[in-house]
Amino acid sequence: MIKLGGSVITDKTRYKTLRTDVLARLAGEIKSSGKDVILVHGAGSYGHIIAAENELQKGYLRDSQITAASQVMEDVKNLDLDVTKCFNGAGMPCVSLPPSAITKLQSGKLNELDCEVFKEYLDIGIMPVTFGDVCLDSERKFGICSGDQLMMRLAEHFKPEVTIFCTDVDGVYTSDPYSNDDAELIKVITQDVLNKLPRTQHCADVTGSIFKKIEHMLNIAEYSKAMVINGLVPGRLKAALCNEEVIGSRVECCNERN
Amino acid sequence: MIKLGGSVITDKTRYKTLRTDVLARLAGEIKSSGKDVILVHGAGSYGHIIAAENELQKGYLRDSQITAASQVMEDVKNLDLDVTKCFNGAGMPCVSLPPSAITKLQSGKLNELDCEVFKEYLDIGIMPVTFGDVCLDSERKFGICSGDQLMMRLAEHFKPEVTIFCTDVDGVYTSDPYSNDDAELIKVITQDVLNKLPRTQHCADVTGSIFKKIEHMLNIAEYSKAMVINGLVPGRLKAALCNEEVIGSRVECCNERN
Repeated sequence: MIKLGGSVITDKTRYKTLRTDVLARLAGEIKSSGKDVILVHGAGSYGHIIAAENELQKGYLRDSQITAASQVMEDVKNLDLDVTKCFNGAGMPCVSLPPSAITKLQSGKLNELDCEVFKEYLDIGIMPVTFGDVCLDSERKFGICSGDQLMMRLAEHFKPEVTIFCTDVDGVYTSDPYSNDDAELIKVITQDVLNKLPRTQHCADVTGSIFKKIEHMLNIAEYSKAMVINGLVPGRLKAALCNEEVIGSRVECCNERN
Repeated sequence: MIKLGGSVITDKTRYKTLRTDVLARLAGEIKSSGKDVILVHGAGSYGHIIAAENELQKGYLRDSQITAASQVMEDVKNLDLDVTKCFNGAGMPCVSLPPSAITKLQSGKLNELDCEVFKEYLDIGIMPVTFGDVCLDSERKFGICSGDQLMMRLAEHFKPEVTIFCTDVDGVYTSDPYSNDDAELIKVITQDVLNKLPRTQHCADVTGSIFKKIEHMLNIAEYSKAMVINGLVPGRLKAALCNEEVIGSRVECCNERN
């Protein structure tokens, strides 16, 4: 199972620029690995801005959120269509399974998800693709279903050989490697390591922060080998899928350590 | 419930030109009617050509159909995104519910469809939109779920006040009104009228022909007032939604006549 992080999909310095060259190469790496893959991507700049402005992650508060919710669903489907175009175009047949159609939250937590439809597409040779989206919430009318929530549920259900978070840096660092020369790659992430990371608010978004992300990863590691790798370096995704040694951060769950 | 016929969505003489002006006006008419509406649209030229070339309506026959199936799913999602953009842009919030994610066929017939998700979006003021698509088939791996099959199932489930087939002519004619001056509008369509229509093959597509369409309409008329109207004439959709007299073809089911 692969999660494409926002930075791989959208170049944040050039707002809404899709890295189609990167996606086409990644499609080729998945295809040549010969593995059955479920792909999850974030909403990137397509979803987070309007979602945050309108507090969609809190559920229904006021009527004006309804048009914002529809707008976000349109925007993330726009991104998703661009992603699936890249994969189909690179000879990796895929189908988009939007959370707004197949999931339901309960008070912000993923409750219902039809996992069977993912398996049925895999069985006929079509890669299922899903993504962060606005969806129904049985208590709050609507809410945000993040790509990470989907990853966790799918990992629990399918227990994949490996779960790969594909991003634009080599793994999880002690600080931002683009601005700090002394940032260090954390090769093994555990609950203890997470507890010791310095807490800052600057990277919080509607789906949480990097700490929330790592917590999701630690949960996923209960069901699947979990790692964070750099999707911008050719060959790393294929190597990770094929269980070869690869530069990155390995995530190890508490259960393995206790 | 409204079905937008292919001709309203795509101008066939100018292949893949979306009639965004028409859709924006129709969005305004739906909004000002104040009615809860489910919208279904066809696949138009976006889906039918590759689907027919690859016999996708027959289900799995050979591996090359898999890339064709993914391509059609991408193409119809492209059309659907353009449709939802028009409606959101015209102040009519909507959500796309793709059959590839929420329906399953059994030997080409619509078997499973989660109708509840349509109701839940209606309840929070978001118009559900669905469309003709490739989807899973429990016997044939995949198949085509037509907009008309969806209309029939949704009509049976929701029993809407009125079901409107919105097209680019005034209703169902005895022959093509664009090429025959003596074509006559059929004001009331029944099974008897259908039986007497001259049968030609020229309008058959992967989802059937106009005769198949009328059969679907006759079935729908068991659950809902059913009619075919001209979406290109301003005001007709709103009038039909508000139960006013409007030029068109009324479809009457056998049960009412027998």
